[in-house]
Amino acid sequence: MTYQAPYKDMQLLVAQAYQQQGLDALESLDGFDPELANAVMEEAAKFAAGVLAPLNSVGDMQGCRFQDGNVITPDGWQDAYQQFAESGWIGLALPEEFGGQGLPKYIAQPVNEMWLSANLAFVMFHALAQGGSEILLAFANESIQKRYLPKIVSGEWTVAMALTEPNAGSDLGALNTKAIPQQDGTYKIKGQKIYITYGDHDLTDNIAHLVLARTPDAPTGSRGISLFIVPKYRVSEDGSLGEFNDVHCTGIEHKMGLHGSPTCSISYGDQDDCVGELVGELNQGLMAMFVLMNEARLSCGLQGVALGELGYQRALEYAKERTQGTNSQGEKVAIVEHADVKRMLLEMRSETFALRALGYQIAAQIDATESAVDKTESNQIKKDRVALLTPIFKAFATERVNVMAGQVIQVFGGMGFVEETGVAQIMRDARITTIYEGTTGIQARDLMFRKVRGDQGKALTELLADITQLASSFESDQVFAAMAKETQQVVTKVTSLLDSHLLNSQGNTSSSDATSLHAVSVPFLEAMGILCCTWQLLNVLAYQQVQENTDESYMQNLRALAAFYGAYRLPSAMAALKVVENAGAGVSEYEF
Amino acid sequence: MTYQAPYKDMQLLVAQAYQQQGLDALESLDGFDPELANAVMEEAAKFAAGVLAPLNSVGDMQGCRFQDGNVITPDGWQDAYQQFAESGWIGLALPEEFGGQGLPKYIAQPVNEMWLSANLAFVMFHALAQGGSEILLAFANESIQKRYLPKIVSGEWTVAMALTEPNAGSDLGALNTKAIPQQDGTYKIKGQKIYITYGDHDLTDNIAHLVLARTPDAPTGSRGISLFIVPKYRVSEDGSLGEFNDVHCTGIEHKMGLHGSPTCSISYGDQDDCVGELVGELNQGLMAMFVLMNEARLSCGLQGVALGELGYQRALEYAKERTQGTNSQGEKVAIVEHADVKRMLLEMRSETFALRALGYQIAAQIDATESAVDKTESNQIKKDRVALLTPIFKAFATERVNVMAGQVIQVFGGMGFVEETGVAQIMRDARITTIYEGTTGIQARDLMFRKVRGDQGKALTELLADITQLASSFESDQVFAAMAKETQQVVTKVTSLLDSHLLNSQGNTSSSDATSLHAVSVPFLEAMGILCCTWQLLNVLAYQQVQENTDESYMQNLRALAAFYGAYRLPSAMAALKVVENAGAGVSEYEF
Repeated sequence: MTYQAPYKDMQLLVAQAYQQQGLDALESLDGFDPELANAVMEEAAKFAAGVLAPLNSVGDMQGCRFQDGNVITPDGWQDAYQQFAESGWIGLALPEEFGGQGLPKYIAQPVNEMWLSANLAFVMFHALAQGGSEILLAFANESIQKRYLPKIVSGEWTVAMALTEPNAGSDLGALNTKAIPQQDGTYKIKGQKIYITYGDHDLTDNIAHLVLARTPDAPTGSRGISLFIVPKYRVSEDGSLGEFNDVHCTGIEHKMGLHGSPTCSISYGDQDDCVGELVGELNQGLMAMFVLMNEARLSCGLQGVALGELGYQRALEYAKERTQGTNSQGEKVAIVEHADVKRMLLEMRSETFALRALGYQIAAQIDATESAVDKTESNQIKKDRVALLTPIFKAFATERVNVMAGQVIQVFGGMGFVEETGVAQIMRDARITTIYEGTTGIQARDLMFRKVRGDQGKALTELLADITQLASSFESDQVFAAMAKETQQVVTKVTSLLDSHLLNSQGNTSSSDATSLHAVSVPFLEAMGILCCTWQLLNVLAYQQVQENTDESYMQNLRALAAFYGAYRLPSAMAALKVVENAGAGVSEYEF
Repeated sequence: MTYQAPYKDMQLLVAQAYQQQGLDALESLDGFDPELANAVMEEAAKFAAGVLAPLNSVGDMQGCRFQDGNVITPDGWQDAYQQFAESGWIGLALPEEFGGQGLPKYIAQPVNEMWLSANLAFVMFHALAQGGSEILLAFANESIQKRYLPKIVSGEWTVAMALTEPNAGSDLGALNTKAIPQQDGTYKIKGQKIYITYGDHDLTDNIAHLVLARTPDAPTGSRGISLFIVPKYRVSEDGSLGEFNDVHCTGIEHKMGLHGSPTCSISYGDQDDCVGELVGELNQGLMAMFVLMNEARLSCGLQGVALGELGYQRALEYAKERTQGTNSQGEKVAIVEHADVKRMLLEMRSETFALRALGYQIAAQIDATESAVDKTESNQIKKDRVALLTPIFKAFATERVNVMAGQVIQVFGGMGFVEETGVAQIMRDARITTIYEGTTGIQARDLMFRKVRGDQGKALTELLADITQLASSFESDQVFAAMAKETQQVVTKVTSLLDSHLLNSQGNTSSSDATSLHAVSVPFLEAMGILCCTWQLLNVLAYQQVQENTDESYMQNLRALAAFYGAYRLPSAMAALKVVENAGAGVSEYEF
């Protein structure tokens, strides 16, 4: 089988996010309506199923090779890249000024989801092109923009992000790569970087590396980091390619998953001949990275949705084919009829659907804030909402897809453990998603300390109010009253924990309190993740039941999904909040 | 680093299980006391760390090869096998009459745990030798016992279990392999089997296959299955090797993990020349398998403990070495100091410890029932307790080790995703443990329908009474009163669910009720798993605090572990029981 885009879900959720985020009222989005979205999605779905999906297991089985200092991508990668670039998919959401199509994020979101489901390892270059372009748009000078952006947007060149060093992972402040200023305003770059996705490959003539480095007299730590653009081959004034820029790939990682995506170690300036140009202000490199990081985190959360969808499709198909046991009439029964298999399928389906809905709302909300003419207070509230939801979406979607990928194998039984079946790959690929772009621990810390304590709980309180209002509309619903009530209880519990633990635990300065809270930050994020999924499922029901022309059997399934989620997953939110209440018990007492 | 047996934990838990199960009062176990256990464990620990552990990643990286119809094991496997057999480890818990050492299970348990931690893929043959021997001891005639058992116990030959066929996985009743009776009382075997662990290899001269097959006039379904012993090379009356028995290995699986353990497809009787002998009665093959299965399920649960321990050791070592970030004095901080890393380490440590305690108690309880002279009612209660705990231990330990293996990688960050680090192997190896020897769904079904409903909740009620009694002894404890109270609440909830859902839901016959219960059987098992871990942690505290010569800093850590478990994991038991209460919501309403 091959992946098929879940077109019906996508259409519904795209239209809903567009309406609910008020995008129809924005002049700047004139013409970029759900009708256009549907047309784009239809094309993308064909490309995903026809070109990318068939290469997914090829990439996994062959992997990338490192030969004589060069990276060789799997069979079919070059051709698929050409088609991807020529079809204009790279610049879909990038400015028309540089050759892009300038589509809003709410349309790019389902399209990106399709790429990520169809072939995550292949399409890793795409988020890099998108994020790299946004950094250059926001921070680079005009000369850099003119020379680089058209090439990146067209796909002639790719982008690589060189952040990590062996001793500087999550703690970028510890990095050591040097940037020595030259007479002509450029910098000589020297240092070793690791874990660079598509840091080298055979898909394009040039690669633009965005490298974090330190100038000689920079402050120590994270305040002394600057960002440089360092091409593999130098780029002359007119944009043509010059000589080799002393950027050497020294090896690629042998990874558990994502075999088709080369993860490179790069040495810059082995011969002291690697030239970079400063992007943005000196010592402001991390700020540029933060712009990228928010983008990258949302994209990473979407990987969770995408792999969840892929896994669900594979598991469902198998569960319908495979028979085990007989029914009371002595007929063979497909395992999709077994109640415990249904449970696993519904866990995947309900959470993937809810997280997709959440991601689409976030994308549309970003469009709303970016396109809004007036920078009013309500616009700031929307931005704060996105900032609050970003770590939840990133960490929860990726943690859950790891669980789901395990369930996919469980549905396949022994056959799932055999590599040729192809579902082990989903689990192996998914494993990195809770680590890169900031680990789950880092997302949870960001949520608890920056997004909640940092604004005294304001954004969280606004969110809880919205959820309360929605839940209360189900209070007298025959089927959903209990779920609505339980949702309210979770909201109440979060509110009381805000008061007792999160905001008022003797302030930010008490380190033992901070340690206790830190030790329950992941459970807190988990509770928020479940609450947000519940919110999204109820939101879809509330919105759809007042729409015309809804498909009744489809709606019945959505209602079953919401009921299932309320019964099977919502109780875990309260359990996670109990853990928060018990903050830190046993953690500091244990001597390792 | 290499694995080191957690000697202190093991000593403590072995001695405690011995005392608490009353093994000191059994004459038949005279001399088999914890002192002997310690001496055996000391030897085993050296062998595990010195011989087996260094081969673990070799096996993973090389895997087994299939060449010209033969299976070739990884480098070092043959030599390690020789040493393992010659040191007498295979027959450790097998009867002295056939060359074994006749040690009780409570001593074999920690030893087996060491093998499984050190090199799970290698040592898979061992559980097969143990289980196969027990089947032959219980069911085979004297001639078979005499010819086969000494060779198996000494390790001269190995055992393979040939159960699964392409269309008969969990549902063995569907199998098709034929056994045609011959004039001389033997049977001609013909059929294809898959997923046969160590079904072929280069470690020994012969392999004794235990094959499930059907005679021509056998009833359909599971009542027509018989068990046969089918050697790769025929065995003459005097036990010497005869000609090739038409047992062909047709291939090995390319698996996600356990690369060093060959998983074979075997064709029996391609040339119509494969001879087998009946083991036990005709059409009673599944009964023999059930004996093996209980054994195998407990061994599989122990794999969860063993891989959890291995993962914890690796993660802890790395967390102590790896620095990220600085403290308030500007010094680099090892990540073991980060509260969220501590949380992950303590989740692994507390649950692994609790499950180890549970497994050791079960092993000692089996010794108690087997060695008891009088077959009294209290002995039956103990047997029923073991039967109740077996599916919980198997499924919960293996489900949890999958979560833990993910956490190990999470502690390593990006480095954990790189294969050379060696921890990805733990996750890949662990993935099969929730599938083989009966999936988690099958264990949960066994628990809910056979072990709970099957005896009208008697064994469960006895267990709950024990837990209540223990918890009540902590009611006025300064640290553990809240945990004790919450444990009681979980017990109360299970009791009320027994009444409202598990036993009285309109009987066994109502299929929609059975479906609803089936759909919450895994959550029910999960709740029972957490409750049992809580029970074990409190039990260790209660027992140890009245012992002499306890090491105070070690005890402080045990208290911290219990407190952590109560705060972080116990709330999930109540959440899982809420799911049981919501039995089946949304499950049958959804149309796949």
